[in-house]
Amino acid sequence: MTVLVLTCEQDVTADMVVARLRERGEPLMRFDPADLPSGGAISGEYVRGEFHGYLSAAGRMVNVESLRSVWVRRPGEPASHAVEPSAWLSAESGQALYGLLEGITARWMNNPAAADRARLKPWQLRLAHRCGFPVPATVITSFPQVARQFAERYRQVVVKAVSGRPVGDPPMILPTTLVPSDADFASVAAGPTLLQRYVRRRADIRLTSVGGKCFTARKVAEEGQVDGRYGDTRHTWQPVEAPAHVRRMVDVYMRLAQLAYGAFDFAEDEEGTWWFLECNQGGQFGFVELETEHPIANAVAAWLAEWQGSVKPHTPPHYRLRNLATGLPA
Amino acid sequence: MTVLVLTCEQDVTADMVVARLRERGEPLMRFDPADLPSGGAISGEYVRGEFHGYLSAAGRMVNVESLRSVWVRRPGEPASHAVEPSAWLSAESGQALYGLLEGITARWMNNPAAADRARLKPWQLRLAHRCGFPVPATVITSFPQVARQFAERYRQVVVKAVSGRPVGDPPMILPTTLVPSDADFASVAAGPTLLQRYVRRRADIRLTSVGGKCFTARKVAEEGQVDGRYGDTRHTWQPVEAPAHVRRMVDVYMRLAQLAYGAFDFAEDEEGTWWFLECNQGGQFGFVELETEHPIANAVAAWLAEWQGSVKPHTPPHYRLRNLATGLPA
Repeated sequence: MTVLVLTCEQDVTADMVVARLRERGEPLMRFDPADLPSGGAISGEYVRGEFHGYLSAAGRMVNVESLRSVWVRRPGEPASHAVEPSAWLSAESGQALYGLLEGITARWMNNPAAADRARLKPWQLRLAHRCGFPVPATVITSFPQVARQFAERYRQVVVKAVSGRPVGDPPMILPTTLVPSDADFASVAAGPTLLQRYVRRRADIRLTSVGGKCFTARKVAEEGQVDGRYGDTRHTWQPVEAPAHVRRMVDVYMRLAQLAYGAFDFAEDEEGTWWFLECNQGGQFGFVELETEHPIANAVAAWLAEWQGSVKPHTPPHYRLRNLATGLPA
Repeated sequence: MTVLVLTCEQDVTADMVVARLRERGEPLMRFDPADLPSGGAISGEYVRGEFHGYLSAAGRMVNVESLRSVWVRRPGEPASHAVEPSAWLSAESGQALYGLLEGITARWMNNPAAADRARLKPWQLRLAHRCGFPVPATVITSFPQVARQFAERYRQVVVKAVSGRPVGDPPMILPTTLVPSDADFASVAAGPTLLQRYVRRRADIRLTSVGGKCFTARKVAEEGQVDGRYGDTRHTWQPVEAPAHVRRMVDVYMRLAQLAYGAFDFAEDEEGTWWFLECNQGGQFGFVELETEHPIANAVAAWLAEWQGSVKPHTPPHYRLRNLATGLPA
């Protein structure tokens, strides 16, 4: 059984997990979909219901049926390193690779379909509320009037990206920012804008959930600090224990979102309440591990390497089913 | 309750369904995500678990909570009609729109996450087999050696696109083609290639599944015909009844794929067996309706307009749950 790590070449976080997998003597293949088909090859054969699939890279070949797990870390765009890259070649290569992998019974961290939905910030806010988290009042709007009224109602509001960072090289950093009281909201009409009630915080919380285990870190905030992710605040991430009710809500969120990995950001207010800000299904954990010594890379490696027996929790239901039309085993 | 039709401006198939919805007096909004934010506006407000969302276009405004259903027909790339289009604006607009819509309880034809997975052809082949359909032997490979051996084993094989048509203007047509016996397979290394045993057919079958109803059409094939979709064959689509066991397998496929709409293509061989070729979750139905008079547009309209009561079959599970962490209603 082999662990497949889908990521690009420069990925220090993946390096940490790969090192742990090697220590465990776990067979693994690291592969960047960008290297298809120039630096890797795939094959899947479907004959009378028998399936044989292979993935080859760096002189190694694995049977995809023998994959224990797939870690979708930071994969490149399929075929983007090809000799003659094109949107069409990327589509063909991506469909072939992910179509092959979606058909096997390996567990995913995280499954691509679940990951796509989990990225939708408006969806996150509703799910978080349903799980019981306090969520700061938020509006996502392209109506200037709605934005203006929201800002007036809550006095101090921050503006954030809806979709995360813009793609670019070098990547653009877009910190959460306080909206000045004399802001002109006319530009909201040019694109949906996310405004959120500013939570005056005494600390930032980063909770990393890995296959049911929680690793929680807390960093004291500077007076008036808006985004704890950027800039030097003289404080470092300290390991803390999340309250039992928060861990319970995290578990429910992960289960409903069908995620095996998620990085939750909370703002701890002056009364000690943890406000849900977001859950990033692909969030970094290297910086938390370095400062807190939480063994997160090891937990990721352990989850990927875990023996699942015959029932796999992240397996789509049809792989456990018989042929429902005939009643015979599929 | 309003039906939301997400599609581009030029869409004759959507026009057919819109006409049926109008005949029924069903409130509807037709919207192209490409028109965000220049020709439409959205807004979602999340305050203490209360959610209010609005979508506005062509001088009308609907409350997204009052949407009965969403038909994802042929939507444009979000914000692509913007005054200053960019990948970043498309990402922001797409996340805002689909994030807003994923959070509501409307039924989808088809839900975007289910649709994404259902497009993966390798995944389709395995699911089809599990549902009991006969599936022609297929290989998807970037190994020239594997392609060559497959072609030798099955003698007559066809080559198809893995991902559907290349994007382009005008769109490129890529018919399924017989591989000549002296083909040079070296170019398979340049991109994953789909080869399939050629099914010598006496007819093509198109079965359109709409919310549990099947509309089946059959077109007699010319001697040696490879792709019934293109070219004039002197024959037209005739309405037929699918055998009960095929309808049962279609229902299982639709349920496991979580689709409300799917267009199945089969090849009927000389013994009358229907071989599964593909299920296109966004397949056209206009040409079938025109030639067979099957009331498919009406079935789509009826499904979109159907009153669902309180339990919605295509609603993700968490919307039916209480807050699992606290036991209180979410």
